[in-house]
Amino acid sequence: MSKIISVNAGSSSLKFQLFEMPSETVLTSGIAERIGLEEGIFTIKVNGEKHTKKLPIPTHNEAVDLLLKSLIEFGVVADLNEINGAGHRVVQGGDFFDQSVKVTPESTKIVEDLAELAPLHNPANLIGYRAFAKALPNIEHIFVFDTAFHQTMKPEAFMYPVPYEWYTDYKVRRYGAHGTSHQYVAEQTAKAMGKDIKDVNIITCHLGNGASITAVEHGQCVNTSMGFTPLAGVMMGTRCGDIDPAIVTFMQNKTNMTADEINDILNKKSGMLGISGISSDARDIEDAVAEGNERAKLTHAIYVNRVVNVVGGYFMQMGSVDALAFTAGLGENDTLIRELICKGLEKGLGLSMDYDLNKTIRGKEIVISKPDSKVTVWVMPTNEELVIARDTVRILGL
Amino acid sequence: MSKIISVNAGSSSLKFQLFEMPSETVLTSGIAERIGLEEGIFTIKVNGEKHTKKLPIPTHNEAVDLLLKSLIEFGVVADLNEINGAGHRVVQGGDFFDQSVKVTPESTKIVEDLAELAPLHNPANLIGYRAFAKALPNIEHIFVFDTAFHQTMKPEAFMYPVPYEWYTDYKVRRYGAHGTSHQYVAEQTAKAMGKDIKDVNIITCHLGNGASITAVEHGQCVNTSMGFTPLAGVMMGTRCGDIDPAIVTFMQNKTNMTADEINDILNKKSGMLGISGISSDARDIEDAVAEGNERAKLTHAIYVNRVVNVVGGYFMQMGSVDALAFTAGLGENDTLIRELICKGLEKGLGLSMDYDLNKTIRGKEIVISKPDSKVTVWVMPTNEELVIARDTVRILGL
Repeated sequence: MSKIISVNAGSSSLKFQLFEMPSETVLTSGIAERIGLEEGIFTIKVNGEKHTKKLPIPTHNEAVDLLLKSLIEFGVVADLNEINGAGHRVVQGGDFFDQSVKVTPESTKIVEDLAELAPLHNPANLIGYRAFAKALPNIEHIFVFDTAFHQTMKPEAFMYPVPYEWYTDYKVRRYGAHGTSHQYVAEQTAKAMGKDIKDVNIITCHLGNGASITAVEHGQCVNTSMGFTPLAGVMMGTRCGDIDPAIVTFMQNKTNMTADEINDILNKKSGMLGISGISSDARDIEDAVAEGNERAKLTHAIYVNRVVNVVGGYFMQMGSVDALAFTAGLGENDTLIRELICKGLEKGLGLSMDYDLNKTIRGKEIVISKPDSKVTVWVMPTNEELVIARDTVRILGL
Repeated sequence: MSKIISVNAGSSSLKFQLFEMPSETVLTSGIAERIGLEEGIFTIKVNGEKHTKKLPIPTHNEAVDLLLKSLIEFGVVADLNEINGAGHRVVQGGDFFDQSVKVTPESTKIVEDLAELAPLHNPANLIGYRAFAKALPNIEHIFVFDTAFHQTMKPEAFMYPVPYEWYTDYKVRRYGAHGTSHQYVAEQTAKAMGKDIKDVNIITCHLGNGASITAVEHGQCVNTSMGFTPLAGVMMGTRCGDIDPAIVTFMQNKTNMTADEINDILNKKSGMLGISGISSDARDIEDAVAEGNERAKLTHAIYVNRVVNVVGGYFMQMGSVDALAFTAGLGENDTLIRELICKGLEKGLGLSMDYDLNKTIRGKEIVISKPDSKVTVWVMPTNEELVIARDTVRILGL
């Protein structure tokens, strides 16, 4: 029996879950937010009860101290030495890591160097790791990469038809993202179907504020919609996904924006927010649709069209699909978007859906297609933290 | 009976075909090339025989004069008054034209204004028209738009998930291209199958040096792979097609290229040329593949993967497909690419192919799938010039 902490560190936040393994029991979970700002927020959940503190959290070091003290304070552990290992989410592993690895000076150096490809994420992930390494110097740590699961893609799926030197000199290729989630959801879906994952093809739709879709053929990722960066693929809350690349340069010329400025708009002012003019939050869009707002309806229509086209592409690339799994914020909870997507896929995939059941499902593992559906459609809550804990146990041999 | 001239004017070239209508007989065809350069080339084909002249052709006016004189010289017509009408290809019709129109001061003004969206093409198209209008002042002219056939797309297919104001203020949306070709090929395919086009769904693959794929549902375009500009969609001879838009800004920052410089690379140094490092010409790639060149094989693999994904998307959007039609340079003649694409689609579309037959087919209207194929696969030579002539007759009431 061991206690493992799963860590997801952002630039101004630190999310954690403490698991007891191998039972996979969640002992506690929480988040430190607004790190570095005037007033920070620390939340920890113990025995189903949430405890929130507002206080300045100057750096990730204070966030980790706060978290570890709280573990003692709330009796989650009697002694910090009970914690046996820590797993840290890292967004960009480049093509160096096709699975989780032990943290070493070498792996840390690579993660550092890869910051070039994930300037907002990798440095933050490392800050989180270092804060824990300082506070818990006696345990071992592992890195879990958002890109690792996608490393099985073949060159025809990960190469862009740009000058070849952009790949060799600048590492421009498709890396994908949300890999831990896609892997978990695909494995869990196969398991829930009583199938060996090697015998099935699954399309996993991770639809959150960020969104990506992955084609999982016999357990391996063969294509994914996020690309060189998480801007690519389907439409998202504030991101545009794939567009004619000439739009980028056309709009720069029209408005005299710099590359960084237009990149910022494509990342933060596009997607659902850009089309609706209302919000990046799917719940607000759904409310507006209910009120008859035309731009909100258009937002849904574009969103669905793009998901349907990507799913169709992956169906064609694999040749057949056994299951379709919806996960993450919208995938698990937005019953209307799920219904619209399934209606768009109905004829092509041969779906037979239970839309009445679908309407009632939020955040619950369940089949929402009917028994005669050619493809089984699942709502499958994701659990990246658990994958991190499992990998930590496996790699550290705990 | 009437004689109609079809014109396709580029910035330094002018292609033409003279038809006798309604028999649709081609009386002559030809091209003036290298207009404005030191030495121009004028070629005209009469009774199956090619006549070529090398001489300076300073402007499109001289090209038109040369062409009209040749018609008399080679006895194609006895008098220029025998020509009853002229149809001119225009690349960008924006959302103003959903079909061909008579040339008027108003339609000319719109085509002029749309040059903003097609700076290389619309001005050249107009120069060609004006040269003919000057030389043949007594006939009427029509404009035939490459975008018109795609105007039936719904907003969910033509809108990009970028700020809505980019659409209203800058006309950023999907327009598509090769519309005349997609329309011709879809109609001809339905006809060849003995079906009313309103009863079938067809995916038309116009694969030339430029390439686009169109979903034609019951005779109407519902999606197409070219976008705001002809840079979008599948991989082409020198164009990248859809890529993560963040690559554009990343590479600008890395190399200090301007928006125009990177746009130029994405248009002229990418695609087959960029990946292979050999050539933008599919025949050269095929030769290199035969010699075992790895980068040439990769070029094919990426090309096929992208076509398969787009076709899959359109299959899913329409829900079913009756026919798949290959046209244009590669589509009609590159038997290997056609075979690789069909192999990629075989399982998903339920194709049963006659690959032995496929190997022998170049530029000929024929079915290359077997009778038990769920989707009929056609090689269907395109004929944009004929559509232009037909529209001219129809619109001018000849």
